[in-house]
Amino acid sequence: MNPAASAQEFEHRLRQIGADRYHDKHPFHDRLHGGHCTPDEVRAWVINRYYYQHSIPIKDAAFMSRVEDPDLRRIWRSRIEDHDGTDTNEGGIKRWLRLAQAVGLDPDYVQSRQGIMPATKFAVDAYVRFVRDKTLLEAVAASLTELFAPAIHENRIKGLLQHYEFADDSSLSYFQNRLKEAPKDVAFGLQWVLDHADTAEKQDMAAAALEFKTDVLWAQLDALWNGYVEGRIPPGCWQPGDGLLLAKAS
Amino acid sequence: MNPAASAQEFEHRLRQIGADRYHDKHPFHDRLHGGHCTPDEVRAWVINRYYYQHSIPIKDAAFMSRVEDPDLRRIWRSRIEDHDGTDTNEGGIKRWLRLAQAVGLDPDYVQSRQGIMPATKFAVDAYVRFVRDKTLLEAVAASLTELFAPAIHENRIKGLLQHYEFADDSSLSYFQNRLKEAPKDVAFGLQWVLDHADTAEKQDMAAAALEFKTDVLWAQLDALWNGYVEGRIPPGCWQPGDGLLLAKAS
Repeated sequence: MNPAASAQEFEHRLRQIGADRYHDKHPFHDRLHGGHCTPDEVRAWVINRYYYQHSIPIKDAAFMSRVEDPDLRRIWRSRIEDHDGTDTNEGGIKRWLRLAQAVGLDPDYVQSRQGIMPATKFAVDAYVRFVRDKTLLEAVAASLTELFAPAIHENRIKGLLQHYEFADDSSLSYFQNRLKEAPKDVAFGLQWVLDHADTAEKQDMAAAALEFKTDVLWAQLDALWNGYVEGRIPPGCWQPGDGLLLAKAS
Repeated sequence: MNPAASAQEFEHRLRQIGADRYHDKHPFHDRLHGGHCTPDEVRAWVINRYYYQHSIPIKDAAFMSRVEDPDLRRIWRSRIEDHDGTDTNEGGIKRWLRLAQAVGLDPDYVQSRQGIMPATKFAVDAYVRFVRDKTLLEAVAASLTELFAPAIHENRIKGLLQHYEFADDSSLSYFQNRLKEAPKDVAFGLQWVLDHADTAEKQDMAAAALEFKTDVLWAQLDALWNGYVEGRIPPGCWQPGDGLLLAKAS
C-alpha cells in the first residue's frame, strides 16, 4: 500500500487540480470578463447559472442530512444561510436574481427555471447526487473548488464593471459577498479534508472528487458556449427575447 | 381537471415529440451519416456512445428492481439479454466493441471508460437515475425514444456503408440487431404507456418523460460536437491518438 502524502504535499496536489482544470481556464470566462459577450450571451449565462445557485443549498442540505456530528452540521449550516438568506442577509439566490434583473431578465422567469439547458441540469444534478451518495470526505473535497473562486470573482467584478453597463454594486453584490463568504467555508473544508484523508487511498478519492467537481463546472460552460456563442440552442431551451422584463410590461 | 386525450391522440402527441426533438435532427448525425466525420470524430463518438451502451442494462435492471409484477419483469428482461448477451447471442455491448475495433480503437480502452466526456456521463447517469427515482410510467415512457430509432439506424447503416471503409456487416452488426430488437420492445412499451396513462396528468408526465429522454440523447451529441468537431476537448477527455489498436502493438 502506498503511504499517504504529507498534508503539505496533498494540499499542493489539490491546488494543482485547480491550476489544471478549474473553469477560470474556460474560454467563456475570457469572453465574459473581457467584455466580448453579447447581452444575450450574458443573459443565457445568468439563466443557466441560476440553476447552480438554486441547487447549492439543496446539495448542502443533502450533505447535512448525512452528518451525525452536530458540530459539523452547525458549521456547514452557514452555507445554506449564505444562499437562502437570514433575517439580516438577503442571501445569494436573491442577489443572483438582482443580477438577472440588471441584465434585463424578469426574475420570475429566471426563478421558474424554464429554458435552462438540459446539459446544465445534468451536470448540476450530478453534483447534488454525488454529495448524496459518496463518502463525506468526497463530498467535502468536491466543495474545494471554492479554493479557486476568489481569483475568478475578483476578475469577474473588475471585468464586468469595466465592460458592461448593467454592472454596479447592486447587480454584482452576489460576487462581492462570495468574496467574504467563500474563504471561511474553504478554510474549514480544506483543513477537514487534510485531516480526514489520512491514507493514500483516501487522498486519491478526495482528489478525484475535486476533479469531478471541476468537470461539473466546465461542462456547464461548454454547454453555454455551444448553445449561445455558437448558436446551437438545444430544443426547448431559452431563446433570446424570452423572459425579458420589457416583455412583461407589454 | 382536464380529461385524458384518447389513446390515438396521445400516441400522436408522443410521436410528435420525436418529430420535434429526437436526435436524428442533430447536425452531428448529418455529418456522421453523410460521410463528413474524420476518423477521430467517429472514434470520439464510438468511445462516448459506449457509455450509453454500458449504462442501458443498468438502467433496465434499476427498472426491474422496482417492478413487483413477474410478468412485466419477464418481458423487460429481454432488454438486458439483448445488451449483455446470452449463450446464443453475443449481445449489443460486444457488438459495439466490434465497431470500436473496426474504427481502430483498442476495445480494452473503450471498455475501460477512460476518456469519456463528463457531459456524456452526466446525461446518461441522469437517465439511469430518472428510471430509478420516477414512476414506472415515466420510466417506460422515457424508453419510447425507441419508437424513432429504426429510421435513424437504417440511415446510419446506409450512410456508414456508403462512406466509411470500416463499415461492413460485422462492424455494423450492433445496428442491424437493433433493427430486429427495438420494434418488439417499443410495441410493448408504447401499449403499456397508452394503457397506464389514463388521466391527463399522467399523459403530461409521460410526455415530459419522453422529452427528458430526447434531452439526454441531444446533450450527448452537443458535447461531442463541441469537443471533437469544434475541437474544444474538455480537460481529461480522450485525445486523438490515445487508445488505438496500433499503439498497443508498439
